[in-house]
Amino acid sequence: LLIVGERINTSRVVKNINVVEAAVVKRDAKYISQLAIDQYNAGADYIDLNCGTLYHGEPEAMVWLVETVQNAITGPLSLDSPNPAALKAGLQVCDFSRGKPIVNSISAEKERYNLILPLVIEYKAKVVALAMDDTGIQQDPAIRLKIATELVDNLIIAGVMADDIYIDPLTFPIATRNDAATGSLKLITEIREKFPNIHIIAGISNTSHGMPERKYLNSAMAVLAMDHGLDAAIIDPNDELMMYMIKSASALLGKDKSCTEYLSFCREMRL
Amino acid sequence: LLIVGERINTSRVVKNINVVEAAVVKRDAKYISQLAIDQYNAGADYIDLNCGTLYHGEPEAMVWLVETVQNAITGPLSLDSPNPAALKAGLQVCDFSRGKPIVNSISAEKERYNLILPLVIEYKAKVVALAMDDTGIQQDPAIRLKIATELVDNLIIAGVMADDIYIDPLTFPIATRNDAATGSLKLITEIREKFPNIHIIAGISNTSHGMPERKYLNSAMAVLAMDHGLDAAIIDPNDELMMYMIKSASALLGKDKSCTEYLSFCREMRL
Repeated sequence: LLIVGERINTSRVVKNINVVEAAVVKRDAKYISQLAIDQYNAGADYIDLNCGTLYHGEPEAMVWLVETVQNAITGPLSLDSPNPAALKAGLQVCDFSRGKPIVNSISAEKERYNLILPLVIEYKAKVVALAMDDTGIQQDPAIRLKIATELVDNLIIAGVMADDIYIDPLTFPIATRNDAATGSLKLITEIREKFPNIHIIAGISNTSHGMPERKYLNSAMAVLAMDHGLDAAIIDPNDELMMYMIKSASALLGKDKSCTEYLSFCREMRL
Repeated sequence: LLIVGERINTSRVVKNINVVEAAVVKRDAKYISQLAIDQYNAGADYIDLNCGTLYHGEPEAMVWLVETVQNAITGPLSLDSPNPAALKAGLQVCDFSRGKPIVNSISAEKERYNLILPLVIEYKAKVVALAMDDTGIQQDPAIRLKIATELVDNLIIAGVMADDIYIDPLTFPIATRNDAATGSLKLITEIREKFPNIHIIAGISNTSHGMPERKYLNSAMAVLAMDHGLDAAIIDPNDELMMYMIKSASALLGKDKSCTEYLSFCREMRL
């Protein structure tokens, strides 16, 4: 499972305080670097950067985030914004030698698609593609499948390689619908069958929105989604339970030869 | 998920001491009662009783266990032995008013089948049926499917109701084979498709044998198996992680209407 570390996000609220936003606003490189290092050391393959709450100055903040995090770790980045200007500014300072960055995200919303696709092509970036269009996020998984299918087809026609596409099927909280998770799991299975060569990514935690003890629901959802074909996740890699469950699922699902990764993860956690 | 509490088992070793065996040998009713109460309060639907390490006096020990646990809790029991004499002795003192006991277990081993089937019929008990025969436990899940299929067919022909049959597909440790868990999951799916009306039970923990941090592998396996059709499990209900993951999977898989069970479990755990 490819892990995108989600912690550098200015909308993230810890104990009622927007700690990340505050750090970005005052350009606290030490705080942001530590968030990146902690996630990288915990096994994040990509570090997600989201400063979307800064309506004014998002592009400048994105540039600062990219440069700050690139100084802190050696791994590649995921630039998380619906704003083409912020994405472009971030891509311009990305160090491509550490691997393609991820543009997070495009969707089938017309304007967003038309403005972000040229950036993905120009920078030969990886891209997260949300299964939504101008009608918003549809509750019916069959409609999301249709949107996802057209989106993937269009990206491939436009020249994006299948291996660079990370489709996000999107999911609703089980607190609102009893079949929210089962619908999304079925959708993941169907996308995997239709497109064996693209990647499927999910934010996972939306599933547990409004519920207590969310970490258990989140990690159970990750395990289930992996069995259905998910191969990337945007999560908090410093959530020990989530990481143990992901490593366990990889081992159980036969994706971790001789359980090498599981065993080395357990060893690291003991230290 | 029907939960069978596994802790009253004389082969259970805690910190290198056979604590349960010692308690059974000296007829320590207080210790055994507490084990039953703890599991019952944690949500066990059945309490499993296994005194199989007492080669001499297993039937007498089983009678004592049944009577002791029936005095401690109001729920039904699972009598866990391959020994027909111990099962018969236990069944004779079972209080059937609290629900059918489970005979744990029959298999397709000829002698075992022929001696235990009459008890299941006579006492109209529920029965765990192991997918193994006189050749032992086969690593190939296709062979286990064949054995399970014949076993279920034979039990039904013999007059056992589908709703009373709990087939155990059996599983190998992932430490020995990379495809041990995926094979068992596929087997569960196939049994569920063939027999929509019987129950599928598993011991789960054998999957993680020989691995570190087994609780994560066990609970991930439970989540996966539930998605494939498992509807009963022999586990330690006092393992908080396992219980949270089971409740989470029920909620995510749409088997817990309005997440009522999950919410009340979280409330109880906070107290």
